[in-house]
Amino acid sequence: MLLGGAAAGAGVAALTACTPGIDETPQDSLLDVGTDTIPFFGTHQAGIATPPQAFATFVALTLRNEADAEAIRRMLQVLTDDASRLAEGRGALADTEPELARTPARLTVTLGFGSALVRRAAGRSAVPSWLKPLPSFGIDDLDDRWTGGDLLLHVAADDQVTVAHAVRMLLKTARATALPKWRQSGFRRSRGSEKPGTTMRNLFGQVDGTVNLRPEDDDFASGVWNDEGWMAGGTSCVLRRIRMDLDGWDRLDTPGRDQAMGRRQSDGAPLTGEHEFDEPDFEAMGPHGFSVIPDFSHIARARGDDPRPTMLRRSFNYDDDPVDAGDGGITDAGLLFLAYQRDVDEGFVPVQRRLDELDLLNQWTTPVGSAVFAIPPGCQKGGFIGDTLF
Amino acid sequence: MLLGGAAAGAGVAALTACTPGIDETPQDSLLDVGTDTIPFFGTHQAGIATPPQAFATFVALTLRNEADAEAIRRMLQVLTDDASRLAEGRGALADTEPELARTPARLTVTLGFGSALVRRAAGRSAVPSWLKPLPSFGIDDLDDRWTGGDLLLHVAADDQVTVAHAVRMLLKTARATALPKWRQSGFRRSRGSEKPGTTMRNLFGQVDGTVNLRPEDDDFASGVWNDEGWMAGGTSCVLRRIRMDLDGWDRLDTPGRDQAMGRRQSDGAPLTGEHEFDEPDFEAMGPHGFSVIPDFSHIARARGDDPRPTMLRRSFNYDDDPVDAGDGGITDAGLLFLAYQRDVDEGFVPVQRRLDELDLLNQWTTPVGSAVFAIPPGCQKGGFIGDTLF
Repeated sequence: MLLGGAAAGAGVAALTACTPGIDETPQDSLLDVGTDTIPFFGTHQAGIATPPQAFATFVALTLRNEADAEAIRRMLQVLTDDASRLAEGRGALADTEPELARTPARLTVTLGFGSALVRRAAGRSAVPSWLKPLPSFGIDDLDDRWTGGDLLLHVAADDQVTVAHAVRMLLKTARATALPKWRQSGFRRSRGSEKPGTTMRNLFGQVDGTVNLRPEDDDFASGVWNDEGWMAGGTSCVLRRIRMDLDGWDRLDTPGRDQAMGRRQSDGAPLTGEHEFDEPDFEAMGPHGFSVIPDFSHIARARGDDPRPTMLRRSFNYDDDPVDAGDGGITDAGLLFLAYQRDVDEGFVPVQRRLDELDLLNQWTTPVGSAVFAIPPGCQKGGFIGDTLF
Repeated sequence: MLLGGAAAGAGVAALTACTPGIDETPQDSLLDVGTDTIPFFGTHQAGIATPPQAFATFVALTLRNEADAEAIRRMLQVLTDDASRLAEGRGALADTEPELARTPARLTVTLGFGSALVRRAAGRSAVPSWLKPLPSFGIDDLDDRWTGGDLLLHVAADDQVTVAHAVRMLLKTARATALPKWRQSGFRRSRGSEKPGTTMRNLFGQVDGTVNLRPEDDDFASGVWNDEGWMAGGTSCVLRRIRMDLDGWDRLDTPGRDQAMGRRQSDGAPLTGEHEFDEPDFEAMGPHGFSVIPDFSHIARARGDDPRPTMLRRSFNYDDDPVDAGDGGITDAGLLFLAYQRDVDEGFVPVQRRLDELDLLNQWTTPVGSAVFAIPPGCQKGGFIGDTLF
């Protein structure tokens, strides 16, 4: 059952039976958290238009030197089989702990390809022009530890045990062909902590992601899904690890925070509006002749000439246990920023160029990792993720 | 509302109204995940007899050299105020992101004291005899990075954003008096992923914690709660970080795993029984004249002469992103093992001595961190955690 879909369970069924015609959405039962599933097979891969789950682990792998097209194809076939079984709450074929797989909790596994994988599988001409490292930005302080990769495993669910088990099974399957290069985990509110559709807050406390492509919007498909060659039905994924200086942010008062963002922290409304989704008025002037929304604020800089969003943002918070907690710094926290768009050079890059030039928020945020992947289309039963490449 | 307690929400209320006398527990609503609270004030601190939440972060702090009894008292007063407010879904007094506090999600904050804190606050005579590092065990491979500490903050909730925010607020409050030494985070199944009361499985897939003191049992209070001096109503906490060799465990077949544990992985039943809670029969012999439950199995070694449990086990899994994922090892995973008992020398130590001498599971598990804390009693409104020390 999809989040917000028809509710099951004896309690709700009985309620419906005795109050026919009630037009409130019935409340989902708590026990749906573990049993709900997201279909694996389809035109697009799951985990993109899917309402975000509570946890996600991203693992980038490096192909072994000897991995050729045939080895890659075999690996993708078995990864597809593993992922489709796990999504249904069944153990992977070689699963040694199938008991841990019985709680699918909306598990999705989404595969992404770096340029080396596409090249080895189908030759240089198959590599999309945008499938390369991003241009370097002045604000970047990238660490190789969180950058690049030939294959992305994006594993997400509403239960962290489910994610841990699935990641392990998939890495075992991949091991003969590819080894982990980096691994990053993030989280959002637990399922049931917020009403479905609530825009998430990041660890600065900001409402983060108001201007976004939404699966129910008319321009979602044209903005997100690619339609060229082997990528038709796929998309591109930009993953940026953005460290947030929470200690510095603490020293800023509420008006300073609201000016940096261009929105109120309290409710996410633009400084010229009343509600989160009100259209910002960048022309509005305050009593002292300054723009109400500062020209250098995050939302003013993020917007180009066309106010329509050009990508799907689907981010997760991270808050790692610092390896050396004793140095006085008390957090290693930030955002795993994820953007999906049909073409990276049309979606993410122009926005990031504007933010790189000037954005008040840059003072408290630093990109420390960066990767770009081609997300191939979904597949039907009998096919495998990436089969359009071969 | 406590887990499994009376359910709220219009749906369930209507259901109850139209099916009077129904004797099934009404299903909790999904949205209770965020709104449920655990009372902070009471005879005992919350977070011990509380049904375990989905996430926990443990931070051990080291007192600054200049922190005297008065500074410690002030810190504990403010930590108590912060914790009691956060448990109700209100921001801490100096909260810069009160929006993140509005989802209590059964938040508990439990404070623990190392011997240095007790000594500085109340003199050497106040230090319980068991409040010291554990005896060294042959299987230990302890790293200072996860060992010891003067003050423990144990922060847990069913939502990871809630935990992240609360930890941050509490560390800011403590900073003038104590700095983080280590920080460890763990998880269990998400709320709603399993029926309340299900024994958790660890990442080996084992049902872990069948023999346990349970809050509803008669011997819980005498086994867990201390009754001496300033500790009356408190308990002791042993926290062991136990690394699990999942790669090695993979190479073991199902019968080998079941023999090492003395229980079946599939359902947690002892090898001589049918169900998880069946009493193991250590005298039963198999057809070849060997004990059905091997003498060196984990459950045979863990049990002493008296089969009654002597501690409350309340563990969390960990599965960290390896700092260097590229070395071929694909996991840094294990168990944050937590044991609570009135006296460490009566509870944890004798069991661990038997396991240290011989336990088939030792081949795949290594304690890499260890700490012991005195958990003071709870307090009433107007008091503070630790006030019996002053």
